[in-house]
Amino acid sequence: MNSQRPEAFRMIGQRIPRVDARDKATGRTRYVADIKVQGALFGKVLRSPYPHARVLNVDISRAERLPGVRAVVTHADTPGVLYGSYSSGIKDEFILAKDRVRYVGDEVAAVAAIDPDIAMEALTLIRVNYEPLPGYFHPEEAMAEGTVPIHPSDRNIASHRLTVRGDPDAGLREADLVLDDRFETDLQIHAYLEPVACIVEYDSRDRFHLWAPIQNPSWSRIIFAEAMDLPIGRFHCVQTPIGGAFGGKLEQKLYLIGFLLARRAKRPIRLENTREEEFQSSMPRVPMVIYLKMGMRKDGLITAKTHRIIADNGAYAKYAPGVVNLGTYRIDGLYRIQNVRNECILVYTNRPPTSAFRGFGNPQITFAVESMIDVLSRKLGLDPLEVRIKNAALPGDVTAHGFRFTSCGFRESLEEVGRMMDYQRVRRERGPNEGIGLSGTTHVCGNRGFFPLFDGSTAIIRVDEGGNVRVIPGETDVGQGLLTTFAMIAAEALGVVLDRIRVDEGDTDLSAFGLGTWGDRATFIGGNAVRLAALEAKKEILRVAADMLEANVEDLDIHEDRIIVKGTPSRRLDFEEVTARAVYTQGGSPIMGKGTFIPESDGADSTLYGNISGTYAFGAQGCKVRVDPRTGEVEILEFYAAHDVGRAINPMACEGQVEGSVAQGIGYGLLEKVEYKDGVMLNPGFLHYRVPTALDVPKMCTALIESIDPAGPFGAKGVAEPSMTPTAACIANAIYNAVGVQIKEIPVTPQKVLKALKDKR
Amino acid sequence: MNSQRPEAFRMIGQRIPRVDARDKATGRTRYVADIKVQGALFGKVLRSPYPHARVLNVDISRAERLPGVRAVVTHADTPGVLYGSYSSGIKDEFILAKDRVRYVGDEVAAVAAIDPDIAMEALTLIRVNYEPLPGYFHPEEAMAEGTVPIHPSDRNIASHRLTVRGDPDAGLREADLVLDDRFETDLQIHAYLEPVACIVEYDSRDRFHLWAPIQNPSWSRIIFAEAMDLPIGRFHCVQTPIGGAFGGKLEQKLYLIGFLLARRAKRPIRLENTREEEFQSSMPRVPMVIYLKMGMRKDGLITAKTHRIIADNGAYAKYAPGVVNLGTYRIDGLYRIQNVRNECILVYTNRPPTSAFRGFGNPQITFAVESMIDVLSRKLGLDPLEVRIKNAALPGDVTAHGFRFTSCGFRESLEEVGRMMDYQRVRRERGPNEGIGLSGTTHVCGNRGFFPLFDGSTAIIRVDEGGNVRVIPGETDVGQGLLTTFAMIAAEALGVVLDRIRVDEGDTDLSAFGLGTWGDRATFIGGNAVRLAALEAKKEILRVAADMLEANVEDLDIHEDRIIVKGTPSRRLDFEEVTARAVYTQGGSPIMGKGTFIPESDGADSTLYGNISGTYAFGAQGCKVRVDPRTGEVEILEFYAAHDVGRAINPMACEGQVEGSVAQGIGYGLLEKVEYKDGVMLNPGFLHYRVPTALDVPKMCTALIESIDPAGPFGAKGVAEPSMTPTAACIANAIYNAVGVQIKEIPVTPQKVLKALKDKR
Repeated sequence: MNSQRPEAFRMIGQRIPRVDARDKATGRTRYVADIKVQGALFGKVLRSPYPHARVLNVDISRAERLPGVRAVVTHADTPGVLYGSYSSGIKDEFILAKDRVRYVGDEVAAVAAIDPDIAMEALTLIRVNYEPLPGYFHPEEAMAEGTVPIHPSDRNIASHRLTVRGDPDAGLREADLVLDDRFETDLQIHAYLEPVACIVEYDSRDRFHLWAPIQNPSWSRIIFAEAMDLPIGRFHCVQTPIGGAFGGKLEQKLYLIGFLLARRAKRPIRLENTREEEFQSSMPRVPMVIYLKMGMRKDGLITAKTHRIIADNGAYAKYAPGVVNLGTYRIDGLYRIQNVRNECILVYTNRPPTSAFRGFGNPQITFAVESMIDVLSRKLGLDPLEVRIKNAALPGDVTAHGFRFTSCGFRESLEEVGRMMDYQRVRRERGPNEGIGLSGTTHVCGNRGFFPLFDGSTAIIRVDEGGNVRVIPGETDVGQGLLTTFAMIAAEALGVVLDRIRVDEGDTDLSAFGLGTWGDRATFIGGNAVRLAALEAKKEILRVAADMLEANVEDLDIHEDRIIVKGTPSRRLDFEEVTARAVYTQGGSPIMGKGTFIPESDGADSTLYGNISGTYAFGAQGCKVRVDPRTGEVEILEFYAAHDVGRAINPMACEGQVEGSVAQGIGYGLLEKVEYKDGVMLNPGFLHYRVPTALDVPKMCTALIESIDPAGPFGAKGVAEPSMTPTAACIANAIYNAVGVQIKEIPVTPQKVLKALKDKR
Repeated sequence: MNSQRPEAFRMIGQRIPRVDARDKATGRTRYVADIKVQGALFGKVLRSPYPHARVLNVDISRAERLPGVRAVVTHADTPGVLYGSYSSGIKDEFILAKDRVRYVGDEVAAVAAIDPDIAMEALTLIRVNYEPLPGYFHPEEAMAEGTVPIHPSDRNIASHRLTVRGDPDAGLREADLVLDDRFETDLQIHAYLEPVACIVEYDSRDRFHLWAPIQNPSWSRIIFAEAMDLPIGRFHCVQTPIGGAFGGKLEQKLYLIGFLLARRAKRPIRLENTREEEFQSSMPRVPMVIYLKMGMRKDGLITAKTHRIIADNGAYAKYAPGVVNLGTYRIDGLYRIQNVRNECILVYTNRPPTSAFRGFGNPQITFAVESMIDVLSRKLGLDPLEVRIKNAALPGDVTAHGFRFTSCGFRESLEEVGRMMDYQRVRRERGPNEGIGLSGTTHVCGNRGFFPLFDGSTAIIRVDEGGNVRVIPGETDVGQGLLTTFAMIAAEALGVVLDRIRVDEGDTDLSAFGLGTWGDRATFIGGNAVRLAALEAKKEILRVAADMLEANVEDLDIHEDRIIVKGTPSRRLDFEEVTARAVYTQGGSPIMGKGTFIPESDGADSTLYGNISGTYAFGAQGCKVRVDPRTGEVEILEFYAAHDVGRAINPMACEGQVEGSVAQGIGYGLLEKVEYKDGVMLNPGFLHYRVPTALDVPKMCTALIESIDPAGPFGAKGVAEPSMTPTAACIANAIYNAVGVQIKEIPVTPQKVLKALKDKR
């Protein structure tokens, strides 16, 4: 691989504790809940208790009269325009319900009061007359003929797309074995520890200021402007430190409600979801029914793949259209399959709106595809690892959908997982009811085309007279450690110690317009922008140093905080001497560096054909499980993950990402199940919705494959999403290997295993 | 005058209410006291009760044991280095007393506790052993032979400077009348309504963050770094809205104490002076004894002027060396006197350190000089107005000290005052015990040389995709309305409505390095920087608009928020259309404009000869008083002020400045008297220290003379300081005119008038 020698780097490749770790561990980090604002009111939201109903009347008069209540808002306080997420083109939602509610949790009214108890009491004083309508809680049910339309759309279909590449029917005919099966995935709650919360101010110049843990501050303004029917300049968004996001902290309706309350009350508003509200009304993972057909030849070659997905959009279209259309075709590049047919149907139901969640549709389809590959292989008497290696994408490939793989460490990832788990030995020598499973994954590093005018990244670096380096990126740390990654990139490029660098959270009054953090774009796209900005600042610093040292700029470098003349170590200047000189003698202006990076990729055409990302990440996972045939319980004994991260900027952080992802994947595959009855969530909290604890997560071995991407910052790509994507299939495959039953619906509960074992007998 | 037609401006010259008025009037403005910080402790300072004493021992053990106390700091917690104000070169102060206290209020220790009561209680538990020393409370007493040195200096002299221009002795010989007199001015308290306060945080990366109403955030870092013996990069200063400053809110020791407490407690600290502390330990106006000699010919020509000033530095050298040396020679340019001798002796006493206060020494010397001109004129049988006009500086003058007057409306100011007050008529027809007085003034607009590396100004303007214009200046609004002035300048230069513009308070992590606001530099120097930055941003906006309109940049302009093609009104674009296009299509980067302005002046040589300001402001005042010969009380019946402001950016704001200044001058001249007994202030509060109320301030007529300075932004100069400077003399002259007694010590209390009347009889 085209690897730069590691010793050429001072910072990149080091195992660096997070720059924000100390503050987080000692409680100094100020999350939005820790920000105190003089005179702030407490807001609360009144939500529909019905999954589907007409709203005949909302009477707020008693609530308004309650002492301590400062504002009550309803649909009448909204601009009354339908809005939607920027990318989908679907506008189907009001900020507060007009004449219809569509899920239990749908926002009807909101209150601001001088304390939270009064606000809660005021909610009980709002009288809403509902006329219940039939509710639909599964997409296949909702799209049946004769249902009541949830929105004005035929058979409750929110979006429908068919994509064909090559000749899938011919491909299937070519196969020696074709399987045709139904898989199903369920809701998954983001389960970040920090609930969605915000502080909103409406200033005396009619501008809204939002402090919130928001993944995409700049971009959100566009949605806010649309929903509030105001110019985007009226919105100022400041990102507060994010206590977990996973795609769930893109723009949130709670902020819009905050705007309404703040404008009405003319006071700052504090709003915070309860945990119950988080479960009820945040935007969980899109459930999918996947009808999958794949063909394989006897030699293991996969000849074609077709899928028909029926996905649960929930009550309103957020990012689910993107999830189902864009997220589920990424897998098609993992293996060299040129015959593909994908049909995606997104259906309204009376469940919470579903949306973006780590992997963005990829974990759903990967569960199905990676499960089927194992079954195909085994039925043909082939080794699933060998089959995967045989079909694996390679560097230079152009996929059926037009993705161009400029770097690809998939094969190496598979081989490394095999090596780590001692695959061939474990395959032969396993205990009773033990099994091993494998799976693979690929993902974009930033999906082009969501915002066609600009979807690169611009970072600004400001160096002051005291030598402080402030990095103002367009992407946000969502808890994944981006502050550290960007600090390391800036320190490496500038040649200074990490302590000089401070990376900003997002602020739309300060940073460049940027799309924020999602789709594994932050390190690859944003990291490049930070690197370029740092190099520009360095150039300016060396220019000033050259004057001071009477040397040529080309002869200078910055090394560990010192400006040195290469080859003449005695001629050197401290970094701060130079920054002070630069600022004081150049009109007081801080040294500024700006870097803009736009990935080289041309985006997709209307059929979604095209290279939609500047590069792609890959990975493979393997695990060993033991199934208890009496209880159906699955114990994961060992877990292995190898991921092509391009370059590990900070190996410790990459491993942390992978380990956290696998844990989340274990939750997705085995544990996390939202229970519903008539549209009412029965387990909205951590007591009965089981996210994995330390006890559920096995010993994990992680390997980082460095394919050194030619376009990545120092070669780096993304890792946060692909490392979660393959986990569920990996576990299901191990169960299949252990006890011979293939579970096609996740989470794989003991009940499902028991039932399958019973059916098998 | 070289005046641009007023109608050529859209914004400049309009009477615009302050952009921050609504927030201030409705209580929305967040002063530092309104900022809430999670977990902040309350700090309190232990101060010396002795005017002069040895400190033998400080025992904090009991205070430390008090429950709720989180930190107690003493000299041992300081770096133990002497520091001083940047400009004086004198380093005579520790942050907390080492082995000596030098005035009542001198800082000895400080405490941080979980609530202010506990902090107060902890102070009472600190045991300090003092050994009293003799105290000196007047500079002429302190500089006597045989005094105990307050600091290691001969006869307690802190600084001494002699400046001679021309031949003063020959000048005096040329005169027909020479007067030689002693004048004395006293302490004056800044009496801003917002006490000095701060919030300090010490972060986990060893960086100090200060939120405070600070006039000079960038520059302060240099003093903080010196006092704390740390690199400047370790200090981050954020200016909070300032509730009055007048020179008193330059760097303050309270902030340094905050740093010590925050570092020790590892918690945010809130510190706030009580009103008593404000009187005791803020840095009041430098009292001066002025021995003045002036000669005048029979025709009214002033032939020479010499002064010997003995000034009270108080216990430590803050800005008093600058005040006495730089502030008192400015007057010498007001009249065309080429023979000057100035001797300035600054003496340590055991009173509070004195420092910068509106006028910076100029009100003191102006009181003496303008008093003596009236007496000289009258004794020679001349009209004081005609004498002033005869000697008045004119445009193009180069003064005895080398000041170059590129614009000068002094003569017009005198004439306008005469016209407004109907001078010739009132002179003849005045009631019993009524009198009229006049006075003149000149002042710098920014004194060069305080920070030789850079003392211009750089402003940054950021325009976002929503068309919001953020102005980041290097100067601070200190309550004088700079936010509005800068917003108007930016709006005028950009061609947009005022509502788009937001002007930042200071933030050293954001703005360019700047000297802040003092010395009437903000509008003249900073305003130019803002104008240049706005023009640069406009250029970029027009470049993008030219693409959109397929027009030439030269044919475009921005008018009232619209980009227009000159002469083709139908071809136009909204401002926000263009800013959105500019940002989205250029890598997300906001539109940035940067403007740097360095006044054309070469500074002063070691004898202080040279043009130390880019331009100079002028003004004249007149008043009519009535003296009650039985009580000695003086009633001001009418007050007139005409000031050469260059160009009135916002006439309403200029008039407000003048009116506020005159009120402060009335306090200085008539009312404000700090009473001391043995070094203890007897009236540290507004009950017994009388600042003028609305009832003390007469009807006022204000005229703005627009000399349109060639270098000023749209021709503007400063007005805040010169409008306070001449008031005391004006009143004293009117008293002299009314009852024939010349009061040479201010404030002119009824007692002094009565005594003078008695002495005269």
